[in-house]
Amino acid sequence: MATYQPKPEDKFTFGLWTVGNRGRDPFGCEIREAKTPAEIVYMLGEVGAYGVNFHDNDLIPIDATSGETEAIKGEFRKALKDTGLVVPMATTNLFYDPIFKDGAFTSNDPKVRAYALQKTMKAIDLGVEFGTGIFVLWGGREGTETDASKNPVDAIKRNREAINFLCDYALEKKYDLKFALEAKPNEPRGDIYNPTTGHMLAFIATLDHPEMVGVNPEVAHEHMAGINFMHSVAQAWEAGKLFHIDLNDQYPGRYDQDLRFGSRDLKAAFFLVKFLEDVGYAGSRHFDAHAYRTEDYDGVKDFARGCIRTYLMLKDKAKQWNADKEIQSLVSEINADDGAMNLFLGKYSAAKAAALKAQPFDRAAIASRGLKYERLDQLTIDLLLGSR
Amino acid sequence: MATYQPKPEDKFTFGLWTVGNRGRDPFGCEIREAKTPAEIVYMLGEVGAYGVNFHDNDLIPIDATSGETEAIKGEFRKALKDTGLVVPMATTNLFYDPIFKDGAFTSNDPKVRAYALQKTMKAIDLGVEFGTGIFVLWGGREGTETDASKNPVDAIKRNREAINFLCDYALEKKYDLKFALEAKPNEPRGDIYNPTTGHMLAFIATLDHPEMVGVNPEVAHEHMAGINFMHSVAQAWEAGKLFHIDLNDQYPGRYDQDLRFGSRDLKAAFFLVKFLEDVGYAGSRHFDAHAYRTEDYDGVKDFARGCIRTYLMLKDKAKQWNADKEIQSLVSEINADDGAMNLFLGKYSAAKAAALKAQPFDRAAIASRGLKYERLDQLTIDLLLGSR
Amino acid sequence: MATYQPKPEDKFTFGLWTVGNRGRDPFGCEIREAKTPAEIVYMLGEVGAYGVNFHDNDLIPIDATSGETEAIKGEFRKALKDTGLVVPMATTNLFYDPIFKDGAFTSNDPKVRAYALQKTMKAIDLGVEFGTGIFVLWGGREGTETDASKNPVDAIKRNREAINFLCDYALEKKYDLKFALEAKPNEPRGDIYNPTTGHMLAFIATLDHPEMVGVNPEVAHEHMAGINFMHSVAQAWEAGKLFHIDLNDQYPGRYDQDLRFGSRDLKAAFFLVKFLEDVGYAGSRHFDAHAYRTEDYDGVKDFARGCIRTYLMLKDKAKQWNADKEIQSLVSEINADDGAMNLFLGKYSAAKAAALKAQPFDRAAIASRGLKYERLDQLTIDLLLGSR
Amino acid sequence: MATYQPKPEDKFTFGLWTVGNRGRDPFGCEIREAKTPAEIVYMLGEVGAYGVNFHDNDLIPIDATSGETEAIKGEFRKALKDTGLVVPMATTNLFYDPIFKDGAFTSNDPKVRAYALQKTMKAIDLGVEFGTGIFVLWGGREGTETDASKNPVDAIKRNREAINFLCDYALEKKYDLKFALEAKPNEPRGDIYNPTTGHMLAFIATLDHPEMVGVNPEVAHEHMAGINFMHSVAQAWEAGKLFHIDLNDQYPGRYDQDLRFGSRDLKAAFFLVKFLEDVGYAGSRHFDAHAYRTEDYDGVKDFARGCIRTYLMLKDKAKQWNADKEIQSLVSEINADDGAMNLFLGKYSAAKAAALKAQPFDRAAIASRGLKYERLDQLTIDLLLGSR
Repeated sequence: MATYQPKPEDKFTFGLWTVGNRGRDPFGCEIREAKTPAEIVYMLGEVGAYGVNFHDNDLIPIDATSGETEAIKGEFRKALKDTGLVVPMATTNLFYDPIFKDGAFTSNDPKVRAYALQKTMKAIDLGVEFGTGIFVLWGGREGTETDASKNPVDAIKRNREAINFLCDYALEKKYDLKFALEAKPNEPRGDIYNPTTGHMLAFIATLDHPEMVGVNPEVAHEHMAGINFMHSVAQAWEAGKLFHIDLNDQYPGRYDQDLRFGSRDLKAAFFLVKFLEDVGYAGSRHFDAHAYRTEDYDGVKDFARGCIRTYLMLKDKAKQWNADKEIQSLVSEINADDGAMNLFLGKYSAAKAAALKAQPFDRAAIASRGLKYERLDQLTIDLLLGSR
Repeated sequence: MATYQPKPEDKFTFGLWTVGNRGRDPFGCEIREAKTPAEIVYMLGEVGAYGVNFHDNDLIPIDATSGETEAIKGEFRKALKDTGLVVPMATTNLFYDPIFKDGAFTSNDPKVRAYALQKTMKAIDLGVEFGTGIFVLWGGREGTETDASKNPVDAIKRNREAINFLCDYALEKKYDLKFALEAKPNEPRGDIYNPTTGHMLAFIATLDHPEMVGVNPEVAHEHMAGINFMHSVAQAWEAGKLFHIDLNDQYPGRYDQDLRFGSRDLKAAFFLVKFLEDVGYAGSRHFDAHAYRTEDYDGVKDFARGCIRTYLMLKDKAKQWNADKEIQSLVSEINADDGAMNLFLGKYSAAKAAALKAQPFDRAAIASRGLKYERLDQLTIDLLLGSR
Repeated sequence: MATYQPKPEDKFTFGLWTVGNRGRDPFGCEIREAKTPAEIVYMLGEVGAYGVNFHDNDLIPIDATSGETEAIKGEFRKALKDTGLVVPMATTNLFYDPIFKDGAFTSNDPKVRAYALQKTMKAIDLGVEFGTGIFVLWGGREGTETDASKNPVDAIKRNREAINFLCDYALEKKYDLKFALEAKPNEPRGDIYNPTTGHMLAFIATLDHPEMVGVNPEVAHEHMAGINFMHSVAQAWEAGKLFHIDLNDQYPGRYDQDLRFGSRDLKAAFFLVKFLEDVGYAGSRHFDAHAYRTEDYDGVKDFARGCIRTYLMLKDKAKQWNADKEIQSLVSEINADDGAMNLFLGKYSAAKAAALKAQPFDRAAIASRGLKYERLDQLTIDLLLGSR
Repeated sequence: MATYQPKPEDKFTFGLWTVGNRGRDPFGCEIREAKTPAEIVYMLGEVGAYGVNFHDNDLIPIDATSGETEAIKGEFRKALKDTGLVVPMATTNLFYDPIFKDGAFTSNDPKVRAYALQKTMKAIDLGVEFGTGIFVLWGGREGTETDASKNPVDAIKRNREAINFLCDYALEKKYDLKFALEAKPNEPRGDIYNPTTGHMLAFIATLDHPEMVGVNPEVAHEHMAGINFMHSVAQAWEAGKLFHIDLNDQYPGRYDQDLRFGSRDLKAAFFLVKFLEDVGYAGSRHFDAHAYRTEDYDGVKDFARGCIRTYLMLKDKAKQWNADKEIQSLVSEINADDGAMNLFLGKYSAAKAAALKAQPFDRAAIASRGLKYERLDQLTIDLLLGSR
């Protein structure tokens, strides 16, 4: 049996808030005692992580004095050094504090919008201080419970103004930084703006510096809306916008579950890993998940090791799929192209269009071909179950 | 009581396939007898529609001879003339015939892709012949049941190539035509590419002629994924991409229901109508819905009249909402801005950023303000129920 | 305009936890300051509630000393007396404390099961002390995240054993008490046992004292699964099991929203109120909802008043629907029965079966009748919007 | 590698309508040519099925003459004899014909209700003629699009009256027959009565002959509502009501997909197979699914073989799970019971209750135990992926 040990080049990362999650939920209090950022780093070192990511307030409490701040940073820096972990991504918490109850960048209150900008600039500084190259923005409160309360066009404009401002800030500071925006359809708001990765990509195309801004798609957020996550990831990748990714798992049509990667929908997880590996995605494999509330910190380590292990098992399966002769023979057959249509396809020309309009097609003959997708899918299931 | 009679400037349109729907579904056969296109036009005239839209094969059967074709066109043209209806939109059916079983523009079979292009060019010609200015494309079969069968990046590239080709075709023909792309998450395929209006807007931004291509968002398709439809419409509008709209209704997380407009989610329908009227959307109000399978053609007319009536009732409510003093006073209070933050907001400057970083904020004070959204929403409910 | 003032006979009740909800959610901390039970009672008196319900630990903190307990009871009793509010229902919190992290009655740990029984007996005593006649049980943690962890048959048996025990306890104590079990599909657990009101009714039929046990269906919980709530309520009613009801609102396929009654799905709320009023449901109209997190306590009062007001507006609409001549004429037509089939329907007899098997039916003729449901539904929409 | 060949004792069955499905859907016409019932039986023999099930009109078209009927029966009987297949289950189609557009047993039209009874009695006769012991009833049209159209209490009473009538019919005819009722939440109706297996079990408890009536739960139907299917199956089993089962697969919150068993949610399929095998379910493993629309009849056979193969692979995995020492050691630990609580649990007695009320519990100590469910679930994932 393979051992599935993580290597630094696998770029497995966790947020402080993931393994540090204390199990609080809407119907229950915290289950696990608090850990300091440094303690979490050591725990991540133990399970084989490559990096650790943080929200500003995961590291520095929102009301910390400068003395407390320096002490925390010192311990955190030491833990990074001791474990060799890096900080590939940072973000800011614009959702927990009561001030953000009606959003941050899209709040109806200009004071909230200004404060959110200030907080984000400082969080960027903090992230850069620890070497991050990716700054994620998740607008968890940017939305509504009732559309009586906010004009959605205003919200788009406010959101755009904020992102443009922050891009200019990073440019002026000469930070080597890219932004990755994260979509979610709902929770904690009734409806969140830019509810899917698609909406977010469309929003990015309207920014002043679109080249600095990509997406951070999350399995759970897209599955909540019942959308094929891998398709969204592929669209982001094809557009050159896959700057980061949040791996976890989720049953569709439910509260945000943030389950252990691959623990709920093995088939979707397989096609996702296969896609990332096939295209050569070089960014972090960030696990934005947390352990069941039934666990103590030993269980949290089981959880973290499980995320990594399942990714590596599926990566192995993807290689096997690409090397499987029967599967590849079917794939070739499915994609057979004798070149006869090259005359009509590709870049438009008037001549091509005219020729194509005159071309007879035998619809029934073309339609009659069985495509063997049941067979191909069953071979995939066999492979997933270890039966080939 | 207001009579809610439609006027031409309301631009209420129906597809031949909507009032002509015969009630077939996955578990049952046709319920209503077939109507000719001309008969449907007269029926639409009777209920007060402004226009009629069609798929190529709604008007001309896929295997019609040229003689049959001319006869049908003649009858249809006469009906349009008799009733005064226009054809603001046309589209093509790339999903019914077996040749499209694995997609049209994204099929793995180059012959299918070529045939789909040919069919669409001819459908464009047909639409233009009847005066349409908007050509809708719904790629109902562009997707997968298993991701083993198709590379999603190939699918995006194939889809883009086709849309680029068709734009060039329209340009070369000097057609005064815009394209409107319609998203749907699933059904009839397991997963359809570009599942939401957001994904479609992002895709459009990558085309050769993005200015010619917008979206045709549909209530039901966005509700299927549990997404706030009005927010997607607002994003399309703000990006200058709301070229057409499909009005109907739908319960979330279900098969595609295409219910009578406003018959399922009154509140969402209200905010949608309010948005369209507030921003001055000038395109068709197209009802892409059909009558319950329990109905005969009298019921179909009840259905069509109901779509129109509910739109007009909600339009009236939107006006009332905008004129309601208590509501508007709350809206003003919610959006109060004393200008104190203007110093920090808007376009970036280094000075602004520095000033903002130095600015103290009293988080608790800002957060303590009650936002009165419950009150505002209740006033909206009162207004919807006719209690103010 | 009607004023929609609540009267005691309307039996509008709220839980301490509803108007006392402080706005904490998975991504944010508390927004509103804590109120004592007595303060909440006065607030409920102010908005016109008839009664107040509580979980044991809403009233008495889980670690209260007996001195604290008596003090709280005294204040609470005084508030009830001052306001005239009653306590029609009580329940127990078997989900918040870490001990219940893997369930209460269905926990794999016998100590947890025993403690849950103990806690519930004491909560029953407390409820009875304050005059309650209905004891609700919501097993929020009775479920799993992984089916590797628990045998579902064991869980059913453990759950049954606990309910049987508690029924016997109430009988032995000669409490005039009925139990109402509340179903929910998920959240906070991945899957909760007895996920719908249907499953709960089926479970009740297997108890030792089914006559003592009914259901407490909740709008949000059934809507989460996309199920028609009124149909479940009707099934409970028809089985004599509608002992209590939780009114709120919810968008399908989402986290538990507990929105203001009638604020999301007006049409569903209308048919629900119509059903309750038509059949003469005599129990509490309990609002198990909470105000948006954007609100202060003035907003909480707006929220509570809104729940009541919308119920009363819809009750009025239901009366109007029953009195509307055109609607009632359609209803009569739809339900027309000339008695010709009485020969075949009703209680079985061999003769009846034989006669029926020999009876010819003209399928096409029967099917050809249009049922006018589009018309009837549109009249309902008109009525809801105040246009008739 | 194991070969996973089906044996008769595995009881794998298919409906005529499953492998005979021609690929029609709401947006497309038939893809595959029609097969006669006899041809389908031979195809099922070829893939290794044990039995074949049918709706009355799968076998005998609704308008067949008696001559045609006898000819079809003869060919079908010969095919059964040639292949050795049996008919363990039969059912009736109460949804396809226009007469059932508003339901069958619950239609507002007494003629429809009478005809539905007649049709079902004849279908029972036909099933019994071919040796069936289970008669399934799926009320696909028993529901509403608008609750204005039907009184749900009437619907329940009508439905009950019909089932009672049919039970009496079977008793009088001395048929050795049980009924299995099948729930579905929606599609083709907006809302179907008895939307889940839970609702159906509750309904059955109110019948005249509950002992003759059980359920036929279907994976897809329960997954559509996002409900844990295995939990519903367990509840039916525990109540002695699991008379039949429909195996297929489905993504939640969508149109009815009827995918190849185990092809969508491997983990759910595993726990389902494990449950059925662990408890010794002895009925048919009926695959109520159909091949993708991309397939010809070779693909249909691939599909059918895949259903069987995946079941057998998962059955093997279930055995392996039960024999895995590390897994079983965790299971034992999770279910550890030192008997100390036996004093308090089980059947009620006043003494037991008194003792339990007096018993101190150390909540914090009990809660502090980590439950190792992440570890157990990861071992299950490893096992599913063939990594242990």
